[in-house]
Amino acid sequence: MITVALPKGALLKDSVACFAKAGLDFSAVLEPGNRQLMVPSHCGRAKALLVRNGDVPVYVAYGQAQLGVVGFDVLREHQMPVAQLLDLGFGGCHMSVAVKSTSGYKSAADLPPHCRVASKFTNCARKFFDDLDIPIELVHLTGSVELGPITGMAEAIVDLVATGRTLQENGLIAIEDLFHSTARLVGHPLSLRLDRGEIKEIVDDICIKNDLHGF
Amino acid sequence: MITVALPKGALLKDSVACFAKAGLDFSAVLEPGNRQLMVPSHCGRAKALLVRNGDVPVYVAYGQAQLGVVGFDVLREHQMPVAQLLDLGFGGCHMSVAVKSTSGYKSAADLPPHCRVASKFTNCARKFFDDLDIPIELVHLTGSVELGPITGMAEAIVDLVATGRTLQENGLIAIEDLFHSTARLVGHPLSLRLDRGEIKEIVDDICIKNDLHGF
Repeated sequence: MITVALPKGALLKDSVACFAKAGLDFSAVLEPGNRQLMVPSHCGRAKALLVRNGDVPVYVAYGQAQLGVVGFDVLREHQMPVAQLLDLGFGGCHMSVAVKSTSGYKSAADLPPHCRVASKFTNCARKFFDDLDIPIELVHLTGSVELGPITGMAEAIVDLVATGRTLQENGLIAIEDLFHSTARLVGHPLSLRLDRGEIKEIVDDICIKNDLHGF
Repeated sequence: MITVALPKGALLKDSVACFAKAGLDFSAVLEPGNRQLMVPSHCGRAKALLVRNGDVPVYVAYGQAQLGVVGFDVLREHQMPVAQLLDLGFGGCHMSVAVKSTSGYKSAADLPPHCRVASKFTNCARKFFDDLDIPIELVHLTGSVELGPITGMAEAIVDLVATGRTLQENGLIAIEDLFHSTARLVGHPLSLRLDRGEIKEIVDDICIKNDLHGF
């Protein structure tokens, strides 16, 4: 039986819709009272593992799920050995550098060397500033990163920006994008190699029915 | 003005009650519709920063908050340079090793060498198994760690256990405790040293009015 790791949170609804078009109905995970973490599809052909966005590539890399849906930001941050199969298109957002709108900084290159940058995505932030040759002090936070500049702890943040409303509400402004992120369909490499058509059929169906193009 | 970092989630209500007894009323953070992350106390003498449990020691270590409330588990896992001032007593739970109740393992020493252990607290888990001289493969998860053994990805988990209900619902059982955890009052070391009585008064008040003993 195929197991699909689905991400809790913002990407869940679109992920379910995406698999529904390919004939796998996981809509039970969307029911308000649902506490189950393993949910069979309506047809019984597959089951969904309901996990955190950041844990999807872990379950797929270890082969506990043959397929998974996860934001590209997570794939860039954690670099797990999973195969990227499709860009699903939804969940679009930017990984951006943001600063206080009153700071006067117009681009990342304006930031003073050795300034503090707060982020949940410290690997992405480290690589970006290393490539720019700007030494920074990274402060790892797990939530509400916008408090970094507000409290004066950090000069800038690196975070996901979708609508920009959270930044605006907190007096921050994005000054540079690291990359654009969307939801991706990923697969367990070994399962894909040993697949006797079952996984390929699902991936092809998702691709065709959602009018997508493979990598 | 004194800034206090308060942890969102399970410890918040008791943290607010604890400071209320010392004359600092942060009850505005408990209001259902509250979206503010910086909330002044009722008296205006102090303000609260509402952050994730895991971020409390970061704000306190960098001096953005002079005081903070955080679970001992977080202090053990992240080892930030903050001063532990008081054991607040609430939020009691154990950091435990748990396995499938059908597995037959009675203690951590029964686990096979090189087995997989899933945890959010990989530093605590690593230290515990290193001390036992049992080589393990750690799998870092960010949530719903109980899925590790259920899916067969991990033989055991290391996680916080309060009532044990989540374990039981998932067919797991705790077989060994790493340590007991409660909420702690922590302080920024430099602020404590430069304090002209303002912080000490709050700490003493919390200690006396909550009938606690300092370290």
